[in-house]
Amino acid sequence: MGRWEPNARHRLAEAALDLFTERGYDETTVAEIAERAGLTKRTFFRHFADKREVLFGGQEELAQLFAEGVAGTPADATPFEAVAGALDAVAADFTGERLARARQRQPIVAANNDLLERELLKRAKLVAAMHDALAARAVEEPAATVAAELGCLAFGIAFNRWVEAGNRREFGELAVEALDELRAATAALG
Amino acid sequence: MGRWEPNARHRLAEAALDLFTERGYDETTVAEIAERAGLTKRTFFRHFADKREVLFGGQEELAQLFAEGVAGTPADATPFEAVAGALDAVAADFTGERLARARQRQPIVAANNDLLERELLKRAKLVAAMHDALAARAVEEPAATVAAELGCLAFGIAFNRWVEAGNRREFGELAVEALDELRAATAALG
Repeated sequence: MGRWEPNARHRLAEAALDLFTERGYDETTVAEIAERAGLTKRTFFRHFADKREVLFGGQEELAQLFAEGVAGTPADATPFEAVAGALDAVAADFTGERLARARQRQPIVAANNDLLERELLKRAKLVAAMHDALAARAVEEPAATVAAELGCLAFGIAFNRWVEAGNRREFGELAVEALDELRAATAALG
Repeated sequence: MGRWEPNARHRLAEAALDLFTERGYDETTVAEIAERAGLTKRTFFRHFADKREVLFGGQEELAQLFAEGVAGTPADATPFEAVAGALDAVAADFTGERLARARQRQPIVAANNDLLERELLKRAKLVAAMHDALAARAVEEPAATVAAELGCLAFGIAFNRWVEAGNRREFGELAVEALDELRAATAALG
């Protein structure tokens, strides 16, 4: 096997999800993931720092999409409209195959404290990405911080509804709804 | 040395802070912390699960104070008023000696990724404590989630200003100010 493995990152992530589902996260080794993907352990570590990271490969793209979505809204958009732009940018990417994988991933992360801890760290990075994109539009403090927090809360609420068993609604629609709910709740805090 | 060591938890936390400051976090062992406190390694592990935890000993009391502060506000208080009650409950505890220790602790945590990750986890537990106390007052979703997030944001902003070199203002005053700023910013998100 040469140094060039087409789509190695994606194949490793898929193999890992399947093995974690079949055998459990703790019971699966990096060597087994690499073998299932038809790759070497060395290739695994070229793509992921450790076993945990293989479950969080999509987070950097997500942060990137958040940033682009905010940047892509009109200059006179309000902070909430800019956040809506971020969620909309993500929605384009959240379709059929991704949903199946998200549904497979959810119980694996939920069952493991180390993974939940890493998830919090990744969430903090998403908030930071949204925050920085808002700050770059001259949204001031603490508005940029609040808007980024509420945007990521809306993302989380919409995501949970999206992956729920039986859900048939699209992510984009759920995200608009969640952000509207947060806006209304915020206005009524007293 | 018997099984009963008066104030062991506090002595271990103080010894750890001093050693981390003098030698660095990574360079200090649990055995050295115990020795400095005049206690045994075994006693250390009766009080803390690992070396990291010795820096987060106050977080459970903090969560408890948040919960009590929310519960102690009048039944007809708004969610924001209940959150202000939580911050007020904490303020009584945030005085002179605690400030000196907080100032000593801050750069240790900031310099270490593992500690920052643990801090995020602890922050999530504070948000959860405030959220659950609000939910117990029949604050509905997502208002309870938003109020808890904003309350912990205000706590963080006030805390950072409090420990800043040269600050002479009291924590309680800074907390009221931060919550007011967040309320105003939130109303202007569009």
